[in-house]
Amino acid sequence: MSEIATIIFQFLYDFLIFTNYTIAWAKNVPLSVEKVQVEPPKAGEVRIKMTSSGICGSDDHVLKGLSPMKFPLIPGHEGAGIVESIGEGVCSVKPGDKVLTLPLPQCRECSACLHPKGNFCENVLPSSGLMLDGTSRFTCRGEKIYHLFRTSTFAEYTVVQEIGVAKIDDAAPMDKICIISCEVPTGYGAAVHSAKVTPGSTCVVFGLGGIGSAVVMGCKASGASRIIGVDINEEKFPQARALGVTDCINPRKLKKPVQEVIMEMTGIGVDFAFEAIGLSDTMVAAWESCHLSYGVCVIIGVTPPNTPFSLDGGNVFSGRTLKGTCLGGSFPQLVTDYLQNKINIDPLITHQLPFNQIHKAFELYRAGKT
Amino acid sequence: MSEIATIIFQFLYDFLIFTNYTIAWAKNVPLSVEKVQVEPPKAGEVRIKMTSSGICGSDDHVLKGLSPMKFPLIPGHEGAGIVESIGEGVCSVKPGDKVLTLPLPQCRECSACLHPKGNFCENVLPSSGLMLDGTSRFTCRGEKIYHLFRTSTFAEYTVVQEIGVAKIDDAAPMDKICIISCEVPTGYGAAVHSAKVTPGSTCVVFGLGGIGSAVVMGCKASGASRIIGVDINEEKFPQARALGVTDCINPRKLKKPVQEVIMEMTGIGVDFAFEAIGLSDTMVAAWESCHLSYGVCVIIGVTPPNTPFSLDGGNVFSGRTLKGTCLGGSFPQLVTDYLQNKINIDPLITHQLPFNQIHKAFELYRAGKT
Repeated sequence: MSEIATIIFQFLYDFLIFTNYTIAWAKNVPLSVEKVQVEPPKAGEVRIKMTSSGICGSDDHVLKGLSPMKFPLIPGHEGAGIVESIGEGVCSVKPGDKVLTLPLPQCRECSACLHPKGNFCENVLPSSGLMLDGTSRFTCRGEKIYHLFRTSTFAEYTVVQEIGVAKIDDAAPMDKICIISCEVPTGYGAAVHSAKVTPGSTCVVFGLGGIGSAVVMGCKASGASRIIGVDINEEKFPQARALGVTDCINPRKLKKPVQEVIMEMTGIGVDFAFEAIGLSDTMVAAWESCHLSYGVCVIIGVTPPNTPFSLDGGNVFSGRTLKGTCLGGSFPQLVTDYLQNKINIDPLITHQLPFNQIHKAFELYRAGKT
Repeated sequence: MSEIATIIFQFLYDFLIFTNYTIAWAKNVPLSVEKVQVEPPKAGEVRIKMTSSGICGSDDHVLKGLSPMKFPLIPGHEGAGIVESIGEGVCSVKPGDKVLTLPLPQCRECSACLHPKGNFCENVLPSSGLMLDGTSRFTCRGEKIYHLFRTSTFAEYTVVQEIGVAKIDDAAPMDKICIISCEVPTGYGAAVHSAKVTPGSTCVVFGLGGIGSAVVMGCKASGASRIIGVDINEEKFPQARALGVTDCINPRKLKKPVQEVIMEMTGIGVDFAFEAIGLSDTMVAAWESCHLSYGVCVIIGVTPPNTPFSLDGGNVFSGRTLKGTCLGGSFPQLVTDYLQNKINIDPLITHQLPFNQIHKAFELYRAGKT
C-alpha cells in the first residue's frame, strides 16, 4: 500500500491527503476500497502513514452491526505505522517515529486514568466516531466518514489523538508488531496483569483465536502447569499445543456442558479461566469452571450491548472473582520484549495480505482460518 | 436457659443430655421448643453449652425452605458458648473454654483451605446436616434431628467438630459476642479483607441490617470518605448514619433505578459496592453502581440456589471486578479487638431475648425491626 500512497502524497495541497481507505458504508455490506480525503492533524493530533493492521473480532462485530457505531466508517484499530505529520503542541512523537495506534487511549486526567487499577478512560467515548473536537478528519465523495475506535487503521493514512499513539522501538518490524496494538496486550495482559496467573496453576482459555492464543502465551510465561484450551474449531489445536496448551477440548464433542467436564478433569475447578470469544454462554462456562472459593474468571470477550449472561446468586458468596479486562498490557514494552526475544508473537500471525485484499482477510477470519 | 439446662445436666447418664432445643420439623412451620437428646462428642468433636445465639438471614432462608436442607433440623449458626466436654483427640479447646461456633470451619487440608485466598472448605458439606462421620448427635421423640450449618446453635447444648469452634478471650461478654460468629466477620471482613476498601474511597452498601451495618463499620474503619446506604426500611437510617453512612437512599422513593441515582450522585460510580441482602436485583444494582473501570462489587448476600442474576456481557470488559465473600474476618481477633475497644459491635445488637422467645425474635427479624 505504501507506494501508491507515497505518490499521491507528493501531490498534496495544504497537506490534505487523498488516498485509499476501506469504508464500511453501512452494516452488513461489503467493505469498499475508496479514495478518501484526510485532513491534516489539528492541535494535539497525529497523522500516521499506516504500514500494517490486524483484524480483530471487535471490527467484525461493528461491521455486522452488533456494536452501536455510526456509519459510514473506516474500520480497523490494531495498527502500526510511521508518523507523517503532527499538529500543534504534539511533543511525544515526531514525523518519522514508528508508532502503534491505541484503541483505548488514556487522557491521563479522568478518574479511570488516574486510578492505579483503571484504564477505561472516561473522556474518550468509543461510539462517537469523531475526534475529541467533535469533527471527523475523513471525507469521501463529499460525505463525512466516521472514525472507529479512535483509530481507523484499515487505511493508508489516519489521524488520531496524540494520546492515541505509542512510540515504539526504531528496530520494530512494522509488518508484524501491529498486533501489539490490541491482540497481544489484551490477551497476554489479561493473564499476566489482570489475573496475575501464578506458577503451577491450572488455567482454561475459552477461544483459541488471536486473543486466546496471547492469553495462552501469558499463562505459559507466568508458569501455569496446566492450560486447557477450548474451541469448536479443532484446526486451532495444533498451534494451541505449540503455544503451551496441555489439553484441548471441543465442546461440540462433549455429552455434557464443558464446565462440568473441566470440573471433572481438574477435580476442583481451575485457578484461572479466560473468556476470549464474546459469547454469554462461554462467559458462564468460564465462571462455572473456576474453583468455587478462589477461582478467578477474566472476561476479555465482548458481546453486543445488552446481552445478559447469568450467574447463580446462590453461589457467588463462596469466593470466586470475576474481572473484566481490556488492553491490559504495556505496548512499547511488549514491542521491546519481542525484539529481545522475551515474547514471540510470530505464531499469532497466520496470514499477511496486501491492503487491497482486505475482503479476503475478513473471509479468512470469518471462516475461522486465522 | 442455663439454669434448667444445668439441672438437667446433673441427672445425665453416660453424658447424654436431654434439654431444650428449637426444632424446625419442616419448612414454613412454627419453630417448636422441645426436649432433645444430645449425644456426647465423638472423637474430634466438642459439646458446647450455648450462652447466646444471633439470628441471621441464612437461618430464615432455611426455615422458609429457600435453601435445600434436610428436616427436621435445629437451626441457628451464630453462637457463643462454653465447652462442656470434648471427644477423643481434641486439643485446641478444653472444658470451660469460651468459644464461638464456626458455620464455615476449615479442614486445613483441602485446596480451598490451603489456598491463601480461599476459605470455602471443600470437605465440609453445608447441606448434609450431619457430622463428618455421617451421623447426627440429636434425637427427639425417637427421631433423628439434623444439624444445620454444622452448628445448630438455637439450643442449650450442641455438638460440633473441633474445627468448628474458635477459642476466644476469657473476658468476652458471652451475651454479645455471638454475632462475631457470623455477622461481624462476614460484613466487616467483606470491607476490610475482601474489598480492601481504600482511604478516601466511595462505597455503597445495599441492605442495612446486621451484615450491612458491619460492612459500614468496615468501610468506616478503612477510611472511606463517602458511604451510601441503601434500604427500603427507613427505620434503619438513623443507626446507619451513626455507624458512618453519609447518604441514605430508599429505592422505593426513587423515580429511576437506584444504580442510576448512585451514578448521578457520584458522577462516575463508586469504588466499592456491597450487596448484603441476597436478592438478584440488588446484586445487579450493586454491580452497575460501580465505576466502569476499577469498581469492585462484593457479593455477601445469598439467593436461593439457581437464582440467576444477569450482567451485561457487553460491558464487563471495561474492568469492573465482582467478588464473592463469606465469613472473611478473623474471629478470635475480632473478639479481642472488641474487648480492646478497636471495634464496637454493640450497635449491631438490637434486642436480647431469652431462649423461649425465639418465635418473638424471628417475628422482629421478619418485620425488619432488628
